[in-house]
Amino acid sequence: MQLTERQKRIAEIVKKEQPITGEKIARKLQVTRSALRGDLAVLLSGQILSARRHLGYYYVGGGEDPVQEKLASLCIRDYMSEPIVVRADSDVDSAIYRLFTEDIGTLFVGTPEDVIGVVSRKDLIKSAMGRDDLSKMPISMVMTPRTKIVYAGPEDTVLSAAEKLLHYEVDCLPIGTVHTDDGEERFSVVGRLSKTNIVKIFVALGEKRAANRKKTE
Amino acid sequence: MQLTERQKRIAEIVKKEQPITGEKIARKLQVTRSALRGDLAVLLSGQILSARRHLGYYYVGGGEDPVQEKLASLCIRDYMSEPIVVRADSDVDSAIYRLFTEDIGTLFVGTPEDVIGVVSRKDLIKSAMGRDDLSKMPISMVMTPRTKIVYAGPEDTVLSAAEKLLHYEVDCLPIGTVHTDDGEERFSVVGRLSKTNIVKIFVALGEKRAANRKKTE
Repeated sequence: MQLTERQKRIAEIVKKEQPITGEKIARKLQVTRSALRGDLAVLLSGQILSARRHLGYYYVGGGEDPVQEKLASLCIRDYMSEPIVVRADSDVDSAIYRLFTEDIGTLFVGTPEDVIGVVSRKDLIKSAMGRDDLSKMPISMVMTPRTKIVYAGPEDTVLSAAEKLLHYEVDCLPIGTVHTDDGEERFSVVGRLSKTNIVKIFVALGEKRAANRKKTE
Repeated sequence: MQLTERQKRIAEIVKKEQPITGEKIARKLQVTRSALRGDLAVLLSGQILSARRHLGYYYVGGGEDPVQEKLASLCIRDYMSEPIVVRADSDVDSAIYRLFTEDIGTLFVGTPEDVIGVVSRKDLIKSAMGRDDLSKMPISMVMTPRTKIVYAGPEDTVLSAAEKLLHYEVDCLPIGTVHTDDGEERFSVVGRLSKTNIVKIFVALGEKRAANRKKTE
């Protein structure tokens, strides 16, 4: 949203002196009250100001940036992909084969109800260095074990997952929940959210514009 | 941006009958011209309508979605990372070592002025399968050669790069330009843009809100 210089000045005034009446703002700007009507309507509709009867205008802020609001509102459940789970006794070679056939970067190890580890491309490259027979090495030897897994819940925000991907330097998070079964803590997985999912969201949000334009033209 | 019911109706009217004067809009809504002043100001500032003197109001559309506008406006030059270039006679083992020390997923091969290939984690995993001595294999045997490289220019939009990452199923694009040198076509690299860069942008745009809030509180 583009504000005029006067609208920015009004927002500044309200920010400092809230609550403030329209009459007082007009006096500060040396204009008539009615000359401000359009500017105040713009600031209210853009959720930069709010108004309360008998009190005047408040600065709401934050609402200035609809991009932040949109990105912070997305929920993982709506954007995650299917998890791919391989058995704990798979060998490294067949896990690599699976990565290529599914064209993904990260596998989960165990069962969907009981994930015991995660294997990424990084783990596989490490295991491949200086070893000669990957077909005999069990996947459990190269995976990151459950206790060290970084994960997110399906109701968390995509933004919080993106922060984890960056902070922990991983390409993909398992999406699921930790629960206790017979006194044992288990992690069950319902999805995966990778950097690729975030790029897809970026493209979907950025491209809609062109699609809408085509529709109206 | 939140529009009132009347603002939405005005936008619809202008969309159908553009260009249309303020007087005509007022007549259609059975209100006075001055009663519309605030609404029109909101629609103009939100870039939903534009106005031309003597002609009246036009529907601009698209501008309804500031998220699209923002994401589509970002330029690669402002967000790319440093390119990491290894010599063409490097062996696979040392390239893998470099990937881990730099903590990245993709290396460029050759010199910054003359990139002859790209090596990704995917390429390295493929090369590692069923081979026993990576320290003797030259990187040029596993790289994607220049003629098949997908790249972008530094002045292109991040959005177009994100589309390429998805469409060509790669994790990282070299950013640079193709030029002719002594009749030979060469690709010189000035940066790289990976899925990680896009996730960083996502987090930066989504998080600002919290940062601003802290500042004003």
